[in-house]
Amino acid sequence: MNQQIPVTSDEARMASAIRVLSMDAVQAANSGHPGAPMGLADVATVLFNRFMRIDPADHQWPDRDRFVMSAGHGSMLVYAINHLLGYDDMDADQIRNFRQMGYRTAGHPEYGHAKGIETTTGPLGQGISTAVGMALAERMHNARFGDGLVDHFTYVLAGDGCLMEGISHEAIDLAGHLGLGRLVVFWDDNRITIDGGTDLSTSMNQAMRFEAAGWHVQSIDGHDNQAIAAAIEAARAETGKPSMIACRTVIGKGAPNKAGSHKVHGAPLGDEEIAATRDALGWTAPPFEVPDDVRAAWQAVARRGAEARAEWRARKADSPESGAFDASLAPVDADRLAKAIDTYKAGLSADKPKVATRKASEMALEVINSTLPNSIGGSADLTGSNNTMTSGMRPVTRSDYSGDYIHYGIREHAMAAAMNGIALHGGFFTYGGSFLAFADYCRPAIRLSALMGLPVAYVMTHDSIGLGEDGPTHQPVETISGLRAIPNLTVIRPADAVETAEAWQIAATATATPTLMCLSRQGLPTLRTEHEGENLVARGAYVLREAEGTRQVTLIATGSEVEIAMNAADLLAAEGIGAAVVSAPSFKLFREQPSEYRQQVRGTVPRVGIEAAVRHGWEVFLERSDAFVGMTGFGASGPAPELYEHFGITAANVAAVAKRKLGLG
Amino acid sequence: MNQQIPVTSDEARMASAIRVLSMDAVQAANSGHPGAPMGLADVATVLFNRFMRIDPADHQWPDRDRFVMSAGHGSMLVYAINHLLGYDDMDADQIRNFRQMGYRTAGHPEYGHAKGIETTTGPLGQGISTAVGMALAERMHNARFGDGLVDHFTYVLAGDGCLMEGISHEAIDLAGHLGLGRLVVFWDDNRITIDGGTDLSTSMNQAMRFEAAGWHVQSIDGHDNQAIAAAIEAARAETGKPSMIACRTVIGKGAPNKAGSHKVHGAPLGDEEIAATRDALGWTAPPFEVPDDVRAAWQAVARRGAEARAEWRARKADSPESGAFDASLAPVDADRLAKAIDTYKAGLSADKPKVATRKASEMALEVINSTLPNSIGGSADLTGSNNTMTSGMRPVTRSDYSGDYIHYGIREHAMAAAMNGIALHGGFFTYGGSFLAFADYCRPAIRLSALMGLPVAYVMTHDSIGLGEDGPTHQPVETISGLRAIPNLTVIRPADAVETAEAWQIAATATATPTLMCLSRQGLPTLRTEHEGENLVARGAYVLREAEGTRQVTLIATGSEVEIAMNAADLLAAEGIGAAVVSAPSFKLFREQPSEYRQQVRGTVPRVGIEAAVRHGWEVFLERSDAFVGMTGFGASGPAPELYEHFGITAANVAAVAKRKLGLG
Repeated sequence: MNQQIPVTSDEARMASAIRVLSMDAVQAANSGHPGAPMGLADVATVLFNRFMRIDPADHQWPDRDRFVMSAGHGSMLVYAINHLLGYDDMDADQIRNFRQMGYRTAGHPEYGHAKGIETTTGPLGQGISTAVGMALAERMHNARFGDGLVDHFTYVLAGDGCLMEGISHEAIDLAGHLGLGRLVVFWDDNRITIDGGTDLSTSMNQAMRFEAAGWHVQSIDGHDNQAIAAAIEAARAETGKPSMIACRTVIGKGAPNKAGSHKVHGAPLGDEEIAATRDALGWTAPPFEVPDDVRAAWQAVARRGAEARAEWRARKADSPESGAFDASLAPVDADRLAKAIDTYKAGLSADKPKVATRKASEMALEVINSTLPNSIGGSADLTGSNNTMTSGMRPVTRSDYSGDYIHYGIREHAMAAAMNGIALHGGFFTYGGSFLAFADYCRPAIRLSALMGLPVAYVMTHDSIGLGEDGPTHQPVETISGLRAIPNLTVIRPADAVETAEAWQIAATATATPTLMCLSRQGLPTLRTEHEGENLVARGAYVLREAEGTRQVTLIATGSEVEIAMNAADLLAAEGIGAAVVSAPSFKLFREQPSEYRQQVRGTVPRVGIEAAVRHGWEVFLERSDAFVGMTGFGASGPAPELYEHFGITAANVAAVAKRKLGLG
Repeated sequence: MNQQIPVTSDEARMASAIRVLSMDAVQAANSGHPGAPMGLADVATVLFNRFMRIDPADHQWPDRDRFVMSAGHGSMLVYAINHLLGYDDMDADQIRNFRQMGYRTAGHPEYGHAKGIETTTGPLGQGISTAVGMALAERMHNARFGDGLVDHFTYVLAGDGCLMEGISHEAIDLAGHLGLGRLVVFWDDNRITIDGGTDLSTSMNQAMRFEAAGWHVQSIDGHDNQAIAAAIEAARAETGKPSMIACRTVIGKGAPNKAGSHKVHGAPLGDEEIAATRDALGWTAPPFEVPDDVRAAWQAVARRGAEARAEWRARKADSPESGAFDASLAPVDADRLAKAIDTYKAGLSADKPKVATRKASEMALEVINSTLPNSIGGSADLTGSNNTMTSGMRPVTRSDYSGDYIHYGIREHAMAAAMNGIALHGGFFTYGGSFLAFADYCRPAIRLSALMGLPVAYVMTHDSIGLGEDGPTHQPVETISGLRAIPNLTVIRPADAVETAEAWQIAATATATPTLMCLSRQGLPTLRTEHEGENLVARGAYVLREAEGTRQVTLIATGSEVEIAMNAADLLAAEGIGAAVVSAPSFKLFREQPSEYRQQVRGTVPRVGIEAAVRHGWEVFLERSDAFVGMTGFGASGPAPELYEHFGITAANVAAVAKRKLGLG
């Protein structure tokens, strides 16, 4: 474990630099939040100056400490620190152009925009919850490769907003349960929210709350550097529990007239107050200039990080685990996986199992998990329903992090955020399951998976009225459409076991896109009965069955409704009507195909779209004049076959609709 | 306050009836959850037999106690009790056909399907959070009409799942902060979840957690009737805090072999275990038959409720507040509101203010709130940004519930659920605000607003890249589309102050549909400069400006992009190209118009859709061959005008695209 570094530098001036850069940048942008960076400057300075182990020369060093600014509106804290540390992509020009088009200094920290931003924050509560995933990944990676290669901390700055959001409850409970001793959360207890004092809306005893969740809790003055350092020491010494340090701070600290008020939360200080703040801090440097002594002090932090990294590299060079360690961080061996999937698919096409796609997902996962070196599965308390636990998987527990299955509990939102954190940390391919209807519960974190381009996989089962008796609350009639609207999210609704295998191949080999699978509860026949080496799901949609003779109508369906389309095509064929069946597992992947291919699949004849969901978004395939057989409102409670009959999603109705389209009905 | 009723009945047999009806119904359905109803039968029996004040003959009696089965999968508990109480729509046939099509006994309790179901539950955590809104509404109504007319309790049965979900944290904090002493939550502490023991996934000290939130907490044996009754007495006596009673129960209690195991959670017991349970309970009646003594005992509960209602009616008849009380529960006076809105709209068309629609919303709310007798506003800590607090509004606090504005804190999800609860309770028209991007945080509760048909209003501001510098995390490029997919949710994106006024008129007069408004951060000119008495937003879309001469192209836009469409039409007109502009504030309302009207608005010429969001779902207006100017991915951080320019959402680009469509580009 890395130790506190002796203090020789002038931390007051180091912190002043953060305060001044932040207030000047917000003023220049005429937009942004000076309050949090100024209030947290002392905590952040002590943390970085005495504890953080990072090397700006290698922002991806695997064993670096992680720093998460969960109160993302205080982004200038991150940018100021990274500028002071000397990250090569965070020069003064970036600070000067805070919140401007084309600069890395976005209004909220955006992962991938600049080095040293470990995760995208802004939507409150996401940072702390993502950090739980990072801290868990650290322990899991440590369990595999030992202290010599994996031994770092995850530090989080969280505000009142983060702790009021529901996701924080899920994340805190999970972290406490898993005993994540390398996680240290600083709560910026400034008693101010946007609307005014926190006493307007909360009476929570946060310390007691965290203790109830099994955390180690301390309360300090967030402007007393010795107290901050001592608290961090104690937090690090408590290895069996995550730590929360309640830091009583003054929002906008340093601004002589506006500090401590909600007026400093999200608005520029104004020229007058900025001048007064400079006076109060004894800061004479002009905007965006950093005095040499201060820069030197911050660069010393970077230098110590570089030394630590050099030591780590030496340890790694001597380690017999070095190769396996690198492999865990490397992209998936796509060729090896492709071979395994191909063999598996050939078997499916031969055996033609009739299984629910949730079961087919488990079967495909058996192949994935035995091929990949580093799968981590999980479910939000629906393991037996989501079929997410493959043979040989063992739970991850606080006493043994070497397992590979996470019982997330009934916490979809924390699960999704933790998956993001695991992916950001590196070392694992991770997936987690719930019911599709409850994708709504984790939608903000799914959005961040997509925004950050994290290749995690969501296993969402019970994907339509086909779940039957659980009724409308559990039947996701609009959920698939709502998810398809999210940019950079590969939503896949496979039709049979073969498509499910292809979906998993896509998910496991993705590099910058999350995958969300919509899987049936009910059994479905194998439709891909002839083995095809190519991954057809990757095309988004394809002709599963061409019409005999002339194609008179195209039936386009997804998931469990492809079987219905096939049966409808039979009915039509019996009447001499040529119907092609298109399986359309992924609208996103289809949109990415060449226009010619898309045109060919869609055909020029009338079309009938079939999906046990709302039509919203089907324009990818259908003209307005085309027909659609699906849902127009919420579902109902009853056995699945009766529901399909009730809502008219049947082969007979599809055939009838097709005939009407052809003027034959 | 109603008092405990002396016990003369055989509560063990009353509880056995719940257990037997539940296990038999689940067995008949071959689907469902016997564990919770059997485990909670004693708690429920004591609650109903000694405390609950309801009258099955008038399920809408305003001063009834509210009972919420938050652990909605235990729906058979509700159906069994309502059957035993003699609700006239819950006969044995309903129980016998549990979870079947066409019966009221859906898999999860569905509001509106049967009397005595106070809210739809099933998605975990919603019930307890909705109940917070009910309990708050009770206090607010009490503050207006006194103890004689409003004096009831809200009781909740919640399971581990409810308390693990993040929304529970938000709701618990809010309830504790507001000191909701009439809220009593029973936690079904059975230590079992679907995956197995709760120790698989949680280590939370729930008692400490609730105490941290300012609750009154007790822990009892949930099968000891005297302890249950004493705890309820104590909970009711604590009038300044909500109460949580941790009830240690055995899941599936009564089943001699399966009780206490996760196997009884969500699966039928099987014939053998059912026979053994009958033996163990000494229950000889065949399935779905209730012995006379048991029925009489439960009917006594109903009789006492009827007496209480009669007393209440007598008090009300004597009350000078009787008329105002009825008015608070009556539908909005639509004519009176229409007049007020008409006058206001006429002024707008004359004054032509350039204001953001979030500001226009505040202006419209001034009219609404001064016309309606019972508006309750609120915001998730964005009051100044959402513009939700009109003049004269006062916060609701624990010491004064007579206010009309709720500081929900940074808790979008609990806000939405509480709004549902306020609407379900009756007595108020309620709305609440957040940023549109954070509609994702409360989407599960918005879905329930729509599923239950509750006329609440969501004020979602900062509705596009037009919010500028806050960047991609806050820019809802896909959120509008995702919300439009939800059935029975009226999403409205008004273009100016006039449309915003019309949107509020729709929201305030809705009876069975929630309204969600997407409002701009940036200023927008008044486009409806000629006064029109009709509510044009109610048509969903309409021709705002017809082309001079022949219509060659139709520009269809929503919200802030209608101004862009108008400017594009000017550019095209300058080149002699006739462009009509259609304002399309609500896709849902447009879909409900007659086909002829829709055809007329859409026109037969090429169309250009314009919205600073993804195209997904625009098929309502556009053919596939039509053009769309909008977003294809996430936004960016920068000043709004630069973002619009960067993403090509400008009048010049719209005009260019239109010309290309016409073969003129």
